[in-house]
Amino acid sequence: MNPPSDDAHLREEAIQSEQVFHGRLLDVRRDTVRLPTGDTAVREYVVHPGAVMVVPLLDDGRLVIERQFRYPVGRVMIEFPAGKLDPGESPLTCAVRELAEETGYRAREWARAGLHHNAIGYSNERIEVWFARGLSPGERLLDHGEFLDVQTATLDELLALAGRGELTDAKTLIGLMWLQNWQAGRWPLDWQAAA
Amino acid sequence: MNPPSDDAHLREEAIQSEQVFHGRLLDVRRDTVRLPTGDTAVREYVVHPGAVMVVPLLDDGRLVIERQFRYPVGRVMIEFPAGKLDPGESPLTCAVRELAEETGYRAREWARAGLHHNAIGYSNERIEVWFARGLSPGERLLDHGEFLDVQTATLDELLALAGRGELTDAKTLIGLMWLQNWQAGRWPLDWQAAA
Repeated sequence: MNPPSDDAHLREEAIQSEQVFHGRLLDVRRDTVRLPTGDTAVREYVVHPGAVMVVPLLDDGRLVIERQFRYPVGRVMIEFPAGKLDPGESPLTCAVRELAEETGYRAREWARAGLHHNAIGYSNERIEVWFARGLSPGERLLDHGEFLDVQTATLDELLALAGRGELTDAKTLIGLMWLQNWQAGRWPLDWQAAA
Repeated sequence: MNPPSDDAHLREEAIQSEQVFHGRLLDVRRDTVRLPTGDTAVREYVVHPGAVMVVPLLDDGRLVIERQFRYPVGRVMIEFPAGKLDPGESPLTCAVRELAEETGYRAREWARAGLHHNAIGYSNERIEVWFARGLSPGERLLDHGEFLDVQTATLDELLALAGRGELTDAKTLIGLMWLQNWQAGRWPLDWQAAA
């Protein structure tokens, strides 16, 4: 692959932006952009606050996962704990909060794995992936209208579900990919003690 | 992990649905749902036609990838070829079409890897992942307003970029995960000759 020396022939520049829907959850924009050719085009997308996902490692090697009904896809999904950033919240603070609220677990050590963009055609959402270990159980505190089951599973069990198409959540698949590559020594994690 | 014996305590049921934005690209809905407790809540989400991504394997082991500016995230992204399903189009037909339009390559063999859901909090999008091999180059045919560079890279190069946070597209990461697990003998692929 060549280095990204000059991307001017690919870039689009905003000319004008308007908010076309602002609901309780979604902020939808429609922008007019200038294409590399000088022509104009319309781009519609969701403005998202960003999210954090946690890969929670139990001392026995098992993982904490959730089963949660997701209305847009109409099914119960197997997922790692995750949630949106509150205004001004750091990703690690969000990770600690979401893990505790949704599962009750508190972690002794944290490591930032990376971030990914999950819907680049129509959303600016970015999801930071954090690992948590040294877990101790506690009380969970779900948001109003939030229902989810907390379970545990091995990496092999989750990879088997993914290979059979029974685990299809993109962020969770990427968390498993991070775990596989960390365990293989390919992608390092830099652990830090919880604050 | 326990079997999903009964998810009634997790499921939400639609009571009412309305379209709140219908642009050139996005179809946004706001539904009222009944929660497992009997209370009601609002769910806002994007209705998406579904998409297909192709992992194109060259005979020398390299992969065909694209560099494309994605306006919602404001950056040039490294991606496998992908595109939305046309109305009534099968995923394989879409895969063949998108690979040819965006890269010029035609494949002798195809294999369906799986599908994933990339934004389950606010979209019904599903992305089918297909592998293509026996590639021969040809003319590409980009959509109006579509600009992208086609390059090649090894799996190791792409995994290094991902580990360093320079490759962050979720579908592309999942394609690399499939390739890793297929090569490791964990996730099989069932190849079929091109039509």
